[in-house]
Amino acid sequence: MILPSDRFFDSDPAIRSLARELYQQVKDLPIISPHGHIEAKILAENQPFPDPTALFILPDHYIYRLLYSQGIPLESLGISTLDGTSVETDHRKIWQIFADNYYLFAGTPTSLWLAYEFSEVFGVTEKLNSANAMAIYDHLQNQLQKPEFRPRALYERFNIEVLTSTDGATDSLKYHRQIKESGWKGRIIPCFRPDALFNLNAAGWHREIEKLGDVVGYEINTYVRFIDAIENRREFYKTMGAVSTDQGVESAYTHRLSAREAEEIFQRARNGKASAEDARLFTANMLMEMARMSVADGLVMQIHVGALRNHNLRNFRRFGPDTGADIPVRSEFTVNLSELLNEYGTDSRLTLVVFTLDESTYSRELAPLAGYYPAMKLGAAWWFHDSIQGMIHFREMVTETAGFYNTVGFTDDTRSFPSIPARHDLCRRVDSNFLAGLVARHIIDLDEAHVLIRALTYDLAKKTYKL
Amino acid sequence: MILPSDRFFDSDPAIRSLARELYQQVKDLPIISPHGHIEAKILAENQPFPDPTALFILPDHYIYRLLYSQGIPLESLGISTLDGTSVETDHRKIWQIFADNYYLFAGTPTSLWLAYEFSEVFGVTEKLNSANAMAIYDHLQNQLQKPEFRPRALYERFNIEVLTSTDGATDSLKYHRQIKESGWKGRIIPCFRPDALFNLNAAGWHREIEKLGDVVGYEINTYVRFIDAIENRREFYKTMGAVSTDQGVESAYTHRLSAREAEEIFQRARNGKASAEDARLFTANMLMEMARMSVADGLVMQIHVGALRNHNLRNFRRFGPDTGADIPVRSEFTVNLSELLNEYGTDSRLTLVVFTLDESTYSRELAPLAGYYPAMKLGAAWWFHDSIQGMIHFREMVTETAGFYNTVGFTDDTRSFPSIPARHDLCRRVDSNFLAGLVARHIIDLDEAHVLIRALTYDLAKKTYKL
Amino acid sequence: MILPSDRFFDSDPAIRSLARELYQQVKDLPIISPHGHIEAKILAENQPFPDPTALFILPDHYIYRLLYSQGIPLESLGISTLDGTSVETDHRKIWQIFADNYYLFAGTPTSLWLAYEFSEVFGVTEKLNSANAMAIYDHLQNQLQKPEFRPRALYERFNIEVLTSTDGATDSLKYHRQIKESGWKGRIIPCFRPDALFNLNAAGWHREIEKLGDVVGYEINTYVRFIDAIENRREFYKTMGAVSTDQGVESAYTHRLSAREAEEIFQRARNGKASAEDARLFTANMLMEMARMSVADGLVMQIHVGALRNHNLRNFRRFGPDTGADIPVRSEFTVNLSELLNEYGTDSRLTLVVFTLDESTYSRELAPLAGYYPAMKLGAAWWFHDSIQGMIHFREMVTETAGFYNTVGFTDDTRSFPSIPARHDLCRRVDSNFLAGLVARHIIDLDEAHVLIRALTYDLAKKTYKL
Repeated sequence: MILPSDRFFDSDPAIRSLARELYQQVKDLPIISPHGHIEAKILAENQPFPDPTALFILPDHYIYRLLYSQGIPLESLGISTLDGTSVETDHRKIWQIFADNYYLFAGTPTSLWLAYEFSEVFGVTEKLNSANAMAIYDHLQNQLQKPEFRPRALYERFNIEVLTSTDGATDSLKYHRQIKESGWKGRIIPCFRPDALFNLNAAGWHREIEKLGDVVGYEINTYVRFIDAIENRREFYKTMGAVSTDQGVESAYTHRLSAREAEEIFQRARNGKASAEDARLFTANMLMEMARMSVADGLVMQIHVGALRNHNLRNFRRFGPDTGADIPVRSEFTVNLSELLNEYGTDSRLTLVVFTLDESTYSRELAPLAGYYPAMKLGAAWWFHDSIQGMIHFREMVTETAGFYNTVGFTDDTRSFPSIPARHDLCRRVDSNFLAGLVARHIIDLDEAHVLIRALTYDLAKKTYKL
Repeated sequence: MILPSDRFFDSDPAIRSLARELYQQVKDLPIISPHGHIEAKILAENQPFPDPTALFILPDHYIYRLLYSQGIPLESLGISTLDGTSVETDHRKIWQIFADNYYLFAGTPTSLWLAYEFSEVFGVTEKLNSANAMAIYDHLQNQLQKPEFRPRALYERFNIEVLTSTDGATDSLKYHRQIKESGWKGRIIPCFRPDALFNLNAAGWHREIEKLGDVVGYEINTYVRFIDAIENRREFYKTMGAVSTDQGVESAYTHRLSAREAEEIFQRARNGKASAEDARLFTANMLMEMARMSVADGLVMQIHVGALRNHNLRNFRRFGPDTGADIPVRSEFTVNLSELLNEYGTDSRLTLVVFTLDESTYSRELAPLAGYYPAMKLGAAWWFHDSIQGMIHFREMVTETAGFYNTVGFTDDTRSFPSIPARHDLCRRVDSNFLAGLVARHIIDLDEAHVLIRALTYDLAKKTYKL
Repeated sequence: MILPSDRFFDSDPAIRSLARELYQQVKDLPIISPHGHIEAKILAENQPFPDPTALFILPDHYIYRLLYSQGIPLESLGISTLDGTSVETDHRKIWQIFADNYYLFAGTPTSLWLAYEFSEVFGVTEKLNSANAMAIYDHLQNQLQKPEFRPRALYERFNIEVLTSTDGATDSLKYHRQIKESGWKGRIIPCFRPDALFNLNAAGWHREIEKLGDVVGYEINTYVRFIDAIENRREFYKTMGAVSTDQGVESAYTHRLSAREAEEIFQRARNGKASAEDARLFTANMLMEMARMSVADGLVMQIHVGALRNHNLRNFRRFGPDTGADIPVRSEFTVNLSELLNEYGTDSRLTLVVFTLDESTYSRELAPLAGYYPAMKLGAAWWFHDSIQGMIHFREMVTETAGFYNTVGFTDDTRSFPSIPARHDLCRRVDSNFLAGLVARHIIDLDEAHVLIRALTYDLAKKTYKL
């Protein structure tokens, strides 16, 4: 399987040749990955990936949610259950199911990422199907045993300049420390994501608060102490190389509570009495607090807005979170962000990067806001929109109002390590093609396009995240 | 008037030649029409269509709503009034108005469907205009008298494999029976659509409940009996060949009422005391009930969401429903469908096909839901979106998240019999062109495209609706 | 800097040559500008524009909001403060900042308009950058001194047939009178925009009501007198040549208050006691009243829906309104306009032109409504959507349901006088290209396209606004 060199470019020859020229300029630039979900442990321990199923399928809900949508039980795909009831453990069998149903991915970005990974990273020469499933499994398994397919070797081969993990507020960051102390030159930095502490009515909240108390060394029994501990942890993250924070919120609503209101809600939560409204207000308040802290300590503030988590409650109870059942909801930014932007949006010390799952907000709300407030920038097309059309919609709906320089480059946000170069390559191609289309229609000139493709690929991410 | 053979294909030569190749493969496949509004009576009686105006204009609100929007009174177009006040009855005069204003349809799918019908079905050789209006009327009138333009002859010429009508829950299905007993081989099957019974505050609800009692043979004086009667009617529809049900709802809200709540609301409705909130909850409950029944009896469940019916009240009182004044409203699916999907969405016995009028929900909610829940599939671009751009938006916003195999093929949903082949032909062309664009950009390969175009045209509809 | 003659056309040769042909037909047609924000004063006094900064930057929030978004203080751009605290007054310095940051506009319509203005209007031969900033400033300054760059000379050179200003309800229209009496043949007409009177809780409402009393000659102390005065002012505007009114509203909600309710709310407003809900209802009521008055006096009714004004309160207090901080909010039309459309939407005496900032409403609500109600027409892509992609989205989402003839041609809506020909030229090119794409795909034929491009450029605006 040889990937076509002009893939994802427009078939119109005028655009295609311009796209090719722009892509050539950036295809070998180092990868900046400022936000994602690769665990530092992988690079700290640098063990061989166990097998193809464990590498490609089990961690990737993009893959198994689509198989599941066609009636294939999660159990048969080896997704482990919380109560330990048995699921398929024969990884070859799981791989065969995957291969039998590989045609389902036609037209999805997953199929494009996998094609790159199989072909460019692992040297697979045929397209996966039922007949060659086991042969390809064996080939991959064989490759994975080799030193050059260990995580650090791949990191270097992928030409990654910096890779950001996402870590809970109470994480010890021991793997980040281990990497640092190992002398290996890879730059793996943490991102501070305290969702588990901010979401008052999540099941594990009390335990998380306890853990927070443990890591800061004092009991978190007041809101004041809570805030103090959060600031303490941010400081620790900074010493470990962090340049950013992240929050995943269902709504972008921002609102500062009075000290007294915040304390009362916090105490109700401690007593297991917080209402849904309490939780909503507390989250809105913590967005304000995180912005305030970012002004103070300089960490870039990211928010990922609009996922309703764990839509399928039965599967949530059986398989836990992050198993493909998070579904977007309609989002609103103009009104919801107004308190935060009025307070901090014109402060040059703040960088707020906003991600959405609701494409209708791009041109209506996000581009107008980012094209005005100095602190606000637009994160790349995210998750379900991290795709060719998703990226095209993003650029088409954002550029005319916010320009290119209020966007921040590409974020792979992946849980699948070998997909990193595939995702960045796809984005570089789509951006090259988008700029080529503008040049072909004389909307920008070619000189501008050359500067812009480098900015979108490398410069903007590096600058925004202060890397 | 000869239709260009490459119509609706991209003008880029690379895409056009691929589109042509894919279209060739499917252009002569039989038509599966799993949802529409052609009355079985037409095919049962097999009488000649009376005249061009009665065939093309009077049943088609796509046509007269646009004429009306430009100030042409509905009366002058012969739309009959409920109170019998007189309207234009000279069908030649009406045709002349239509011809005089034919230019208004430029750029609409109606103009494309009509061009096909006039040229391919009826052999009209000129484009309709003021000058040739009467000559074309005469030509059409002449054709309609011939045996080969009777409904059954057209059905066969159109190469229809199955045609689904839409029928009220209390319908006797006598025309379906008549067709069956006639020995004619056409397959005309009913679809069970009980909206008139589920919408508590519709004007005719009490009469509908009475009719339901008549057809099942007992008084419908309790909710329990109501449910029993619905199940009874579904069973009857199945014996008459039905494979599906349908519900038209303004909102997708689903919620199961307790037995007691349901009974209380039902009794309030019987006493003419049901509130708007009662009606809303009752509809939400009946969506749950219909899903439950589909799990039991295997009928495919369809929902058409988001039309606010009869927006113009004066015209509604004067001309009745379905006269072009239904207008879409914003829709929500992630939260609204959560109760139904949590209860039945992972049940392999259910097939739920969802149609929307709100394109912003495609990528945000519907594709993510259909790309996860095994029971849920996405119906084709519907009504105002049953158009070239509408279909392009649908594929562009759905495919990357849900793939092709969580969609169900084309639904013509027409009230105009001769438009059936025109609509299917248009969709086959647009799908061919969409796939050609993916091949040209190396997103899928040509082998995949050949399999997919057949799936989109024929296989998926046949499989989804168990035909 | 020579502008490419094929700019903004598709690069596909088939489309490009058709687009060129259609554009040739309309490129020299006179400009109809039925809505905008150029002040009549400019053409009444016909003084030379003072300097490039005063002409291009200071009145144009499109420009300075994007500079501001990248951290450049409004003060350094010379935006004057309400309290008179000092801002940059050296216009050459401001121009240098603008030139240093000109690259930020890549991909925005502002960059395309400016390229046209510099090159076609003012004969600048290089692209603006840091190095040539002062040379270009001097060149422009020199041009502005010449008689042929005075406002009336430019008006004639731009080939403007009619230019509509936007004027508060209490405006004396003295500059319009002065133009009329000057004997100059330019047609500058006012548009009646009474927002300041209709928005009960705006800061200056009491002063506006007083001014209204002054101009009509009686105290406005009752709602009845208020309505009477509004009718009086409309009549005056008509005598001054007005053909239209305009209202800017955050929501499209329409609702008629009873005489008593209206009076009570009006009195509460006079006493400074109107609530937010009062204000909301009063605006909804005034939309009904303005429709009623338009039926009576024939003025075209325009509504611009969906801007949340003055999002940044600190900057609002410092710099005032219209400084780039108005941000769109989600809009709804189907339910909100239903009372108005039920009352007046089928009245042939009313023309209601609706503008939106929410692109998701085009295909879902606006096209279906305009494709039904005789009185309702769709205004052009507005503000943030007055751009190439914005116009493409508009045509793609509107045409198939509403056709072309329920739209009203282009509205430049500009505050920047020399941008008028640039904006119209851009729209003519994008419409030509859109129609060319339809012809190339055989959706319309070339004859139709020739009629349509003229309609979109000239005929529809002239007809809709009765010019």
